[in-house]
Amino acid sequence: MMRLDLAYDGTEFRGYAIQPDVRSVQGELERALGTIYQSPMPTAAAGRTDAGVHARHQVVSYDDAGHAQPRRLLGRLNSMLPEDIVVTEAAPAPDDFHARFSAKSRSYRYRIWNARYRDPMRLRTHWHVDQRLDEAAMNAAMAHLIGQHDFTSLCRKDGDKGRERTVIDCEWHRTDDLVELSVTAVAFCYQMVRSIAGLAVQVGLGNADPDSVPGIIVAQDRSLSSGVAPPHGLTLWAVEY
Amino acid sequence: MMRLDLAYDGTEFRGYAIQPDVRSVQGELERALGTIYQSPMPTAAAGRTDAGVHARHQVVSYDDAGHAQPRRLLGRLNSMLPEDIVVTEAAPAPDDFHARFSAKSRSYRYRIWNARYRDPMRLRTHWHVDQRLDEAAMNAAMAHLIGQHDFTSLCRKDGDKGRERTVIDCEWHRTDDLVELSVTAVAFCYQMVRSIAGLAVQVGLGNADPDSVPGIIVAQDRSLSSGVAPPHGLTLWAVEY
Repeated sequence: MMRLDLAYDGTEFRGYAIQPDVRSVQGELERALGTIYQSPMPTAAAGRTDAGVHARHQVVSYDDAGHAQPRRLLGRLNSMLPEDIVVTEAAPAPDDFHARFSAKSRSYRYRIWNARYRDPMRLRTHWHVDQRLDEAAMNAAMAHLIGQHDFTSLCRKDGDKGRERTVIDCEWHRTDDLVELSVTAVAFCYQMVRSIAGLAVQVGLGNADPDSVPGIIVAQDRSLSSGVAPPHGLTLWAVEY
Repeated sequence: MMRLDLAYDGTEFRGYAIQPDVRSVQGELERALGTIYQSPMPTAAAGRTDAGVHARHQVVSYDDAGHAQPRRLLGRLNSMLPEDIVVTEAAPAPDDFHARFSAKSRSYRYRIWNARYRDPMRLRTHWHVDQRLDEAAMNAAMAHLIGQHDFTSLCRKDGDKGRERTVIDCEWHRTDDLVELSVTAVAFCYQMVRSIAGLAVQVGLGNADPDSVPGIIVAQDRSLSSGVAPPHGLTLWAVEY
């Protein structure tokens, strides 16, 4: 197996996953791999990010039948891929390595620019919230998410898949006007981080109580959630194996 | 007089200065001011940045005849301006205040992403240089720029204007793969920071000797310079009054 580590600016993609007739990260990557190997090369990824969501560290695997020379592959891929994707590493992996199923956990960050006015240099990477957020209240809410729960209330329905997930760490940090969520889970269900960020902002604005969170989770009712934070504030930060 | 402090992402502008039929920061700003005051409102700016150059802190002044209410003006301007410009402050200034002529000095930063591969999140803000730069050599070169010199060799010709300038501070700092120039001068001539960055990179790559800099300056010959670094790495960082 071959393992690729990549980063991308999600702004101009309709998400990670390949879809017909739209620009996707997987589509660009598999097109380049198809040219290099001169045959289709299906890939698996650690996290399928939505349109507008960025990745500092995404991991992809595929079965190259042991043929690739990693250094040469890395150079060729980066010369063929568009500028908004970069492959930072290419390395042979054990036969049983799978970017998605071998991952022990994923870490995301959600970034908020919490100032009266927008910052033009952060339009693509931060959600602008112009009212002051109470990050202590947000963290009191987040504490209820740690551990194993059914996250139906904080996930968008995605077929009949189960929505029981284990959150390892979930905490907001403020640095002046920057308010940033670091969240790690074994895995996430669909739109879970953005739903967590949406809920946290309602708590941070004083519109929801931190202690309402256990009830929201237990209800397993998505209508109780506070909406989904916009995608551009979200970055897939790291994948742990 | 009214003083405005603003920031912008220069990517989608053909520069700060107003020009017919192209998108400029000054054009957008004066259009909004014209609507608010219902008459043309010519402005002066501390630094005229080129196409693609950003501003963290630009200062503009205009004669509002003492009529404006700064808080209301700030809110209206930010609601009318496009997202890639923000006015961070509006404040009355003394009658003799002029954003350009009253400024004591300007500070710019030039940012280089010095890594083997591009960083997709820095495409708009950093020059990607893939060979390792020697920042100690670059700083040895920069030391020769401090003080008052004729910078003809490091400026693009701009009419018959003099090119004697006083550089107060000029230093590169490395933080891992980020190599950043902080430069402060009383004023800069046209494309001076980008020419300094271009020269510094040639020194950092070992293609020019730090001790060649005094000769380049004394020659007052632009053909001796090392070319102009691309605009997107440059940010007007602060203006001191």
